[in-house]
Amino acid sequence: MKSRVPEVIERARKLVEPALVEAVDRLSPGLRLPGRYHFGWADAVGDPVPDGGHGKGVRPSLALLSAEAVGAAPEVALPGAVAVELVHNFSLVHDDIIDDDKERRHRATVWNVFGTGDAIVVGDALMVLAFELLLEEATPERTAAAADLIRATADMIAGQYMDMSFESSAPGDVQRCWEMVSLKTGAILAHASAVGAILAGAPAAAVKSLRCFGGELGRAFQAVDDLLGIWGDPSVTGKPAGNDLRERKRSVPVTVALHSGTRAGAMLADLYASDHLSDSDIARAAALVDEAGGRSATVAAARECMHRAADALSEADLEVRAADELLELAEFIVDRDF
Amino acid sequence: MKSRVPEVIERARKLVEPALVEAVDRLSPGLRLPGRYHFGWADAVGDPVPDGGHGKGVRPSLALLSAEAVGAAPEVALPGAVAVELVHNFSLVHDDIIDDDKERRHRATVWNVFGTGDAIVVGDALMVLAFELLLEEATPERTAAAADLIRATADMIAGQYMDMSFESSAPGDVQRCWEMVSLKTGAILAHASAVGAILAGAPAAAVKSLRCFGGELGRAFQAVDDLLGIWGDPSVTGKPAGNDLRERKRSVPVTVALHSGTRAGAMLADLYASDHLSDSDIARAAALVDEAGGRSATVAAARECMHRAADALSEADLEVRAADELLELAEFIVDRDF
Repeated sequence: MKSRVPEVIERARKLVEPALVEAVDRLSPGLRLPGRYHFGWADAVGDPVPDGGHGKGVRPSLALLSAEAVGAAPEVALPGAVAVELVHNFSLVHDDIIDDDKERRHRATVWNVFGTGDAIVVGDALMVLAFELLLEEATPERTAAAADLIRATADMIAGQYMDMSFESSAPGDVQRCWEMVSLKTGAILAHASAVGAILAGAPAAAVKSLRCFGGELGRAFQAVDDLLGIWGDPSVTGKPAGNDLRERKRSVPVTVALHSGTRAGAMLADLYASDHLSDSDIARAAALVDEAGGRSATVAAARECMHRAADALSEADLEVRAADELLELAEFIVDRDF
Repeated sequence: MKSRVPEVIERARKLVEPALVEAVDRLSPGLRLPGRYHFGWADAVGDPVPDGGHGKGVRPSLALLSAEAVGAAPEVALPGAVAVELVHNFSLVHDDIIDDDKERRHRATVWNVFGTGDAIVVGDALMVLAFELLLEEATPERTAAAADLIRATADMIAGQYMDMSFESSAPGDVQRCWEMVSLKTGAILAHASAVGAILAGAPAAAVKSLRCFGGELGRAFQAVDDLLGIWGDPSVTGKPAGNDLRERKRSVPVTVALHSGTRAGAMLADLYASDHLSDSDIARAAALVDEAGGRSATVAAARECMHRAADALSEADLEVRAADELLELAEFIVDRDF
């Protein structure tokens, strides 16, 4: 089942994209081209792409709604919405180098077009630009928003590193896997879901509830992403079937299966220890993850996160309409097959 | 002639290194090892290195003196000194990947030991850590220091990108070369030379003078670095003779020579256009840079920058002792053969 695209996505795009374009255009001339290319606004030689611009703008949408949730105008969230989208895109540019991913959303990745060195520098520049924008005016609210974004970025980087180390030397147990997910995906969604309220100078309790909502949403999102990484339809995910298994990722369902104490889990561990997985090995690995309970446990965990996200929202005194839109957006983000 | 090591270098090390170690130890466990390795405090498996810790600590020394120059205690500069050193080291870790440099100060570079992916993430983490430290307490002074560091970092990244593009597609004229130098090297030294005063809440005029001093010092430093890149003693620089020429860098002396309108400049351009430079080609290229006036013009420019740096200091009402130490440190930084 695919949810209807929530209205806020389009509303956020209209408000945020012009400011995002303006921000990226502030990069020095050389960096502007790969920056604009990455966002999908330009092709590899800088010509504009009609109807370009990829990404659903989930983080800007959360930022806008978090301002509205505390009774502020969505414009209040604008610098935070732009900044969190810049940080998200810095991480995409660097992750694509690290994971050696040649395509993202059916386009060649930045390193693939401009080279690794350029992609490292473009990522660095997008991250710094985010902080620069927020601190351009040193109001207490913007300073608090910048400090929050910087902490979330530090967490995201730590989570990314944990994820990388799970693939090689030091895979963790189920709890450490969730810790990694909370850092890698939860922290920046928690920030996105709170930054509008922070910029509006909202009371700490409201900010805390919104941040908690975003963190749970992030975990649910990652759990679903992990499920799609094994059982997602390649024509929809844009990645080969069982891609995460081929790369021997220690995703949530795999980690649950490996630590299940079941015979299927032990057989999966044997498969993961081999040098190369054939297509039939991958199909078998997917079946073993399922048999060992990794699939059902991950689905259940995603549902629990979504319940906790809803509970977190109901704990604060938020504007009803915005809170409803936050929940609708959360359902859309998690229930995705695009 | 080699200057005596200024006393402030050791004083800054004693004050700043413990705080720097503490900061790096705040990285998540996995990132801590490559971080400590990079700073020279640990070997590749994490064992402590006796008397480790490389780098002269020029930026922290400037930061401390800039606090003292406005009558504040050196401790006031501490978070700024740590943060600027973290940003400097983020840039070293990423630059070593980009330049494919396998060694730095006679040790294998981070990417060479831990892999490119890890080195990208470690660099990212060091940069974010710098901003996180400064914004940990949201005083107006620390917020101003963070905003200044973020701007300087953005400039440094833009300069690094310009430098990379000079090597390949778009070499610039002499003026653009100096612009690149001001961004790549000047901006962060300008910040280092002002951040102590910013943290001390000093008047804008004093901050401006100190920043101007640091920018000129940065240009002089880079000019000398460019001279050493061609004529430096390999046993001292740790790089092969004429290394910058082998890599066909568009450094200041080379750019001056290429735009000199001389016969030697035209011959240098021909050499630079060839596919491979032999050792004798490199010796010849060095002689052509000299003959075309690139060497003498760069020496003269470095001297002018140092004069302007001294003038900038004398324009503000600074503590005499600290201002003298800033000048002594500047002489030491520029007149280096280590």
